[in-house]
This record gives sequence, C-alpha cells and structure tokens, in this order.
Amino acid sequence: MDTTHETAAPAEAEVDESRLRWWERRTEWPMVALSVLFLGLYAWMVLDTGLSPRAHARIDGVMWAVWAAFAVDYAVRLALARRRLRFVLRNIFDLLVLVLPLLRQLRVLRLVVVLLTLNRRVQARVRGQVVLYVTGAVVLLGTSAALAVLEVERTAPDAEITTFGDALWWTMTTVTTVGYGDYYPVTGQGKLIAAGLMVAGIALLGVVTGSIASWFVDRFGGLEQSMSASADATRRLDAESDQLRAEIVALREEITALRKEITSR
Amino acid sequence: MDTTHETAAPAEAEVDESRLRWWERRTEWPMVALSVLFLGLYAWMVLDTGLSPRAHARIDGVMWAVWAAFAVDYAVRLALARRRLRFVLRNIFDLLVLVLPLLRQLRVLRLVVVLLTLNRRVQARVRGQVVLYVTGAVVLLGTSAALAVLEVERTAPDAEITTFGDALWWTMTTVTTVGYGDYYPVTGQGKLIAAGLMVAGIALLGVVTGSIASWFVDRFGGLEQSMSASADATRRLDAESDQLRAEIVALREEITALRKEITSR
Amino acid sequence: MDTTHETAAPAEAEVDESRLRWWERRTEWPMVALSVLFLGLYAWMVLDTGLSPRAHARIDGVMWAVWAAFAVDYAVRLALARRRLRFVLRNIFDLLVLVLPLLRQLRVLRLVVVLLTLNRRVQARVRGQVVLYVTGAVVLLGTSAALAVLEVERTAPDAEITTFGDALWWTMTTVTTVGYGDYYPVTGQGKLIAAGLMVAGIALLGVVTGSIASWFVDRFGGLEQSMSASADATRRLDAESDQLRAEIVALREEITALRKEITSR
Amino acid sequence: MDTTHETAAPAEAEVDESRLRWWERRTEWPMVALSVLFLGLYAWMVLDTGLSPRAHARIDGVMWAVWAAFAVDYAVRLALARRRLRFVLRNIFDLLVLVLPLLRQLRVLRLVVVLLTLNRRVQARVRGQVVLYVTGAVVLLGTSAALAVLEVERTAPDAEITTFGDALWWTMTTVTTVGYGDYYPVTGQGKLIAAGLMVAGIALLGVVTGSIASWFVDRFGGLEQSMSASADATRRLDAESDQLRAEIVALREEITALRKEITSR
Repeated sequence: MDTTHETAAPAEAEVDESRLRWWERRTEWPMVALSVLFLGLYAWMVLDTGLSPRAHARIDGVMWAVWAAFAVDYAVRLALARRRLRFVLRNIFDLLVLVLPLLRQLRVLRLVVVLLTLNRRVQARVRGQVVLYVTGAVVLLGTSAALAVLEVERTAPDAEITTFGDALWWTMTTVTTVGYGDYYPVTGQGKLIAAGLMVAGIALLGVVTGSIASWFVDRFGGLEQSMSASADATRRLDAESDQLRAEIVALREEITALRKEITSR
Repeated sequence: MDTTHETAAPAEAEVDESRLRWWERRTEWPMVALSVLFLGLYAWMVLDTGLSPRAHARIDGVMWAVWAAFAVDYAVRLALARRRLRFVLRNIFDLLVLVLPLLRQLRVLRLVVVLLTLNRRVQARVRGQVVLYVTGAVVLLGTSAALAVLEVERTAPDAEITTFGDALWWTMTTVTTVGYGDYYPVTGQGKLIAAGLMVAGIALLGVVTGSIASWFVDRFGGLEQSMSASADATRRLDAESDQLRAEIVALREEITALRKEITSR
Repeated sequence: MDTTHETAAPAEAEVDESRLRWWERRTEWPMVALSVLFLGLYAWMVLDTGLSPRAHARIDGVMWAVWAAFAVDYAVRLALARRRLRFVLRNIFDLLVLVLPLLRQLRVLRLVVVLLTLNRRVQARVRGQVVLYVTGAVVLLGTSAALAVLEVERTAPDAEITTFGDALWWTMTTVTTVGYGDYYPVTGQGKLIAAGLMVAGIALLGVVTGSIASWFVDRFGGLEQSMSASADATRRLDAESDQLRAEIVALREEITALRKEITSR
Repeated sequence: MDTTHETAAPAEAEVDESRLRWWERRTEWPMVALSVLFLGLYAWMVLDTGLSPRAHARIDGVMWAVWAAFAVDYAVRLALARRRLRFVLRNIFDLLVLVLPLLRQLRVLRLVVVLLTLNRRVQARVRGQVVLYVTGAVVLLGTSAALAVLEVERTAPDAEITTFGDALWWTMTTVTTVGYGDYYPVTGQGKLIAAGLMVAGIALLGVVTGSIASWFVDRFGGLEQSMSASADATRRLDAESDQLRAEIVALREEITALRKEITSR
C-alpha cells in the first residue's frame, strides 16, 4: 500500500539504479508466467484428491523449482543494485517470504512470494481502474487463501475445513470480518493464513470506504463550490486585467500623439 | 457502484444509442411494476407456510413468467444496441444473473435480476438523497435476503434458520459484519446469499463512512479556511483592480485636458 | 445523522415557526431533567434485583409518567406547528417511538425516546467537539443498551445474558462489530436492541473513520500544498498591484507637474 | 487521537510551562528505557512457565518499582506545572491508569502506563510516517495484549486461552473485528483487555481507511483539477501584471522625454 506520505522516497531515488530497472523490465513477463504456473500447480495439487503420492511429490518438486527461480531473481537484483543495504531494507518483506518457506512449518508462504510478484505487475498496469484492481486482487487472494487453508487443515485431526467449499466460505466470512465462527482454522499454518486474510480484509474495507468517501467528497463537497467561486473571481480578474492593459496602450498612443503635436508645432 | 474514476466512459458514450435509450425509457415503469410483483409473490410463497403444493407451483409459475419478461427485455435491448459486443460486455452481470437461475441450484438468483432492475430505477431518481437511498436499499436487500435464505435453508436437515424472525436476525448480524455465529446458513445456496450480503455489508460500511468522512472534510477542514483566505485575497484584488482602472481613466482625462491646453495656446 | 446533502431544508425553513421554537427552548431543560430521571430509575429497576414487586411497579409507574410527559410535549409541539403535516413527517421517528411502547412487546422503546431527547440537546451544545460527543454518546448508548438487554433477557428460559457484566461485555462485542458469539440475545426484544446497537456500531465506525480521514486529508493532502501555492501567488499579485497603483499615482503627479510647467510658460 | 478540531488548545498553550517542558525533555529517554525494561520483564514473567514463585515475586517487585518511577515522574510534572488543575484535567487518563493498578483486580493496567509513555515518545518522532507508526503500534499493542490476556486467563478454571499462541490468535481475531468466537476471555480482567483491544481495532480500521481515503481524494479528486485550473489562471494573471507594469514604466519614460522636450524648447 503505497501512500503519498512517504515523500522522502522520490528525492532519494535519483541514484542511478538503471541496471536494476533494466533487469526488472526484462524479467517481468517470465516472472508473471512462473507465478501463474505455480498457482495452477498448487490448485491442482490441493483440489485433485486422487493424486498418487508420487505425482504429488513431482508437482511439489516443480513448485520448489519455481520458488528457486524467484530466489535467483532476488539474488540477481541484489547483485545489480548499487546501494545493496538499501535494497535489502526496502525489500525486507521479499527476503522474509523467500527464506521462511525453508522452514517446514512455513512452506505455505511460497504462495505469498507468487502473489506479491503478480500484484506488483498488475498494480503497474491498472493505474486508475481501482474497482477492477480491487475486485481482481480480492478474488485471487481469496482463492489462494482458500486453497492454502484447505491444504494445511484437512489432514489435522480436529479440522473443520475439509472441503474446498468450506474453505471458500470460511475465506468469505474472514475477509469481510464477519467471522461467524462456524469454521475456523485449528493448525498453526492455517492460523497464519487467516491472519494474512484478516489484514487483507481490513485493507479491503479501507479501499472500498476510501474510494466511496473520495467520490462523496468530490461530489457533494462545499469545497468544490467555494473553489469554483474563487476560480470565477480569478477569471473575471483576468478579463479585467486585459481591459486595463488595452487602456494603458490607448493612453500611450495618446501621449505619443501629444508628443508629435508638440514637436510639430 | 459507479465512481468518477471511470472517466473513459462519457467520451465513448457519444455513439448513437437513441433506439436503446428510447426502449429503456418506455419499459422503465413496466419493469419496476413486474419487479414489485415478483417480490410480493416471493414473499407470499416463502412466508405462507400453509400453501398447498399446487398454489405453490402456480406462484412459482408466475415468477418464472416475470423472469421470462426480464429475459425478453434483455434480448430486445441487445437487438436495439448498435454496438452489441460492447452491450454484452457492459451488461455481463445482467446476462449472468439471467442465465444462471436456469440451473436448479441457482434458482434463487432470479431475485438478483429483480433487485438490480429496481436499483437502477431508484438510483436515477434519488440523486443526492444518499441517506434515503442507502436506507431504502439496505431494507429492501435485507428483506429479500432474509426471505431467500429462509426458503433455501428451512428444508435442510441441520438448518438453523427456520423462521422469518431467525432469517431477519441473521441478515442483520451479517450485513453489519458482527457475525455472532448463533445462526448461519448450512446449504450451498444459503451460503451464496450470505456471500452477497457480506459484500453488501462492506459496501454499506463504505457508504456510511464515506458520507460521514465527506461531511467532516467539508466542515472541519483547514482547507476550507485557506480556501476562503485565497478567495478573500482574490476579491480584494478584484476591488483594487477597479480602482486602478478608475485612476487610469482619470489619467487619460488629464492628458486630454493637457492636449487641449497645448492646442488652444 | 444530519448531512450537508439535504440542501433543500434551510430554504424551506423560513416559514414562521417561532411559537414552536419558543416552546422548544422553554422545555429544553425540563425534558433533559426528565430524561436523566428516567435513565436513573431504569438503571435502579434493572440493577437492584432485591426490589419487591410493589416497589418495581411503583418505579415503572413513574417511568410511564415520564413517557406521558414526552407524549404531551409532542402533542403541544404538533399543536404549535404551523405546518402540521410537515411536522409529523419530519418527526415521524419521534411519533413511532412514542406510540410503539404501548405494545407490551416494545415497551423497551421508551428508552429510545429518552435517548433521542438527550442527543438533540447535547448535539446543539458540543458543535465541533466531535471526539467528546462521540465518546459520550457511545458510553450512554452502550450503558442503556446493556441495561435494556439485561432486563428483557434475564427472565428468558435459555438466556445467556444474566448479569450486568455479561450485558456490558456483549454490548462491547456488538458495537465494535467483533461479535464473538459467546453471548447473544435470544428474545425478540433483545434482538431488537441488538439491531439498534449494530446500526450504532456502523455509525460509530463511520464517525471514527471519517474523523481520521478528514484529519489525514487536511494534513497530508497534496491539495493543501497546491492550495497554499495558489494563495501565495494571489498574495504576491496583491502586493504587485499595490506597486502598480503607486506607479500610476507617480505618473499622474508627473503629468500634473508637466501641465503646470506648460501653463506657467 | 489528537485532531485539528480542537482549535482552542494552541491559543491557551502560551502560558509559560517551560519548567515542565524542560523536565519532560530530560526524562524522555530514561522513561522510554524503563518502559522497555518493564515490557521485557513482563514478557519473561508470562512466557517462562518454569519460574519459581520466588523469582516470580522478584520480577514483580522490579515491575512495581518501574511503576513507582512513573508515579514519581507524574508527581514531579504536577509540581512543576504552573496551572495544576489544568495539568490534572488534561492528564486525567494518566492519573487513572497510575492509581487504578493499586486495586488488585486492575493490576494489568500498569501495562497501559508503559504503552502510553512509549506511544508519546514514538509519536513525536515519526511525524508523517503513518504506515510505519501504525504497524509498530499495532504490533506492540497486540503483543502486550496477548501477554496480558494470557497472564490473567490461564489460571481461570474454564479458560480457553492457555498458550501464547492462543493468545496471539485471539488478539488477531479481535483487533481486526473478525471475532470467530473460538477463543474469548472469561475473566473480568481479560474482558477489560479485550475491550481495550476492540477500541484499538476500531481506531486501526479508521487509520487504515482514512489513510487510503486521503490518498484517493488526493489522486482522483476533481478538486485537484479545478485547483490547478485556478492556480494556472493566477499564474497567467501574475505574468500579465508584470507586462502591465513594464508598460507603465515605458509610459513614464515617454512622459519624462516629453517633458524634456517641452523644457528644452
């Protein structure tokens, strides 16, 4: 969530990071393709309950390969950056979600790497189309969260979320902050995913409200009226200034004529 | 939820769709009447538990007839539109809610067709009366959702929502995102309705908050003060400009007098 | 919730309702005193579980007398109003909460009459002190709701809210829209109170958010900057206009001098 | 939450409270250090379940000493203040959280004293970095609340929150207002902490929404456009005024030339 408040950034950004930018532009589409591949494989693995353990292991292997590609991308970007410390600090979240999945308990965070990449790409494309972007982001995030929670929960002994339908329903009650409590995650990883969804839910509320509030402020604000009153006064003033100038020009001509008369006498 | 951000639309809308507009104007009131009829019949069918299966089937028949009228209206509008592909894309949601009720599991979506039609009509009428519109929309949507969830839930074996009172209470806890979890839908269709209500609840929060925020911004904003300071300065400048002009006029008269004197000598 | 959007009202209000206003000013303090008395008696009746049925009946009698005083006030205001139909329509909510408590099931609505009166009085006093007003309103509303829900719930067979502590805790979880569901009302009247609290919770969220949003817009907005830039330009222009005028005055003096010279020759 | 609406304050603050300010500047860092120490000891005491009763008592003793230091600081500030009554009224919340922990049931409020002190210090430092500040505040508040609720709940007979993981999960569901109800406090002190968290959750929603709304208003507002139109007009006017002045100067020179000519004749 980038806000205008971080005014310090643009000033600092003048350091030459053109090599980094070049790499980021070149790898943009391949990374998006890898992300979509990863999501597809993940959905397959979770939803196809008839998979043999071997097929399961193979899909998981490909997913780890995609994850490795993201790790390589991060390493190259770090190598290309001129100010490495700043790069690490600014992308501390990327580093965390890259390293943490190595812990068996946090394997599900690989999804976050993928979603972050997709989000960056999409954000750059849909400037201004807020409604479209938010809808898309919520649908993608919700589906991923439902898949992830289903994967980590269904094998737990006292799990409540055991089908994809349950998982989707639970996602919906969580992201809207309704929270009936008819379904909730019972495993550590499941609760981690839920925490992420809750934060997303708060941000969603913020975006929806902010968008509507901005529309209201624009449409009904008394500001607009006093604004246009001021603009009118300025415009009138502008017109008057033109007349003033015309009169001064006339004045000048008269003085010139006067001078001629005096000289000619 | 139409926002000012979609600035591309007005520019494009200059294509001549007068035939379409004419049809829409003519069918406006009949469609509203059909919508109200549908809602009335639906309420009757759900709330009157003493209905014989035959009476039930008859009411359902009339409701399918109303649905058919909406389908015909869509078809005519499509036929009248000059840019058909654009019409379909723009009204993709209308098409979806028209076709999906044909699936037995999604029959309840016929209500959405009706509510969408009522909403369009009302939105055009109550420009500016936001509080009235939101209250009306929430009451209508809530009652419809309560009826719908009651219809689909009460026959389920482990249903919790079995009376209209339960359904209204559940609607209230959902749309405000409180979500106690003392009642919740257990059927697929019921969960679909709940999902719709949750989205409505988030939008409701957004509208209420946005409306209040806009009022605050207008009323307490330091902006207003610096605005009116600027407007004052402009006004003062305007007055001064008038004096300036008067002085230039006086100057001119003096020069004319000077000239006369010179000539007369 | 009064918003600036209802711009039609001030224009219409010019009809002479001075008799009505006079009565409202005179009865303001007595009505507030009656309201406070009612709330005190109500709290006593609900919290003192050792009351004999006779004492209980007596307190209830006094409370009905207060309610009657409010009804008389409404009748007098209606009699004094010049445009009676408009008065009824504008105060339709007052009429409803006055008449509905006559139904045994809706006796608890007497509290709403009292809270509405207090709210009107306080709102007129604390213009601008939004934080204070909201805090006060939430505390008063929450305490009243806790008392009311305790009264109507504790005698129900399967009630969960049976102590004042339970009732306060339930109020808190409801008004913040958290809604754990560890306590919830089971009676019709209790659910009615809950519905009112939920609406208040949404409004509370709106006011808190709106207030903070307005503060953000004021403080961090790029608007402010472009505003003050514009104000600066206007101010500079103002100063320049003064110089211009001084120069024109100087010009005039020079012409006068010139004239004298010509005449004196 | 200090808002710009309380415009009366800056005017009043001109009373000389320099002694008080001097003390506050000098004790700032020591108080922050004491706060961090307190939080560390508290976390140790709560999380290390293997502590002997004696070690437990010792840690508690140090924590009471820290609390005493805060009480002394309050007393000194009160002694240094010129307007004592105003100081007490303005810091009524500080006084409350200092005195209330003396009641055995409200011991947990010592944490609030510490968090308030940290908050004041941090707020002064991170002006403008809203995202950073909010994230930090939520993490600190959430962790403290989880520790506190764990301490007061785990010894209750029917407690549900018995591990730090449970406590963190419960904190998350509460502060986001999701409220599943799978875990909730059952003791009085636990419910007090929960109430504080709920209020914080509402404020969090407000800050997130307000921040996003302000960004939207800045970015998409029609205001900005009419603003810059007005600014353009002012700038054009400014330029024209310069030309005007140049022309008047030229006029003046011409008159001077004219005069010379007349005199020289």
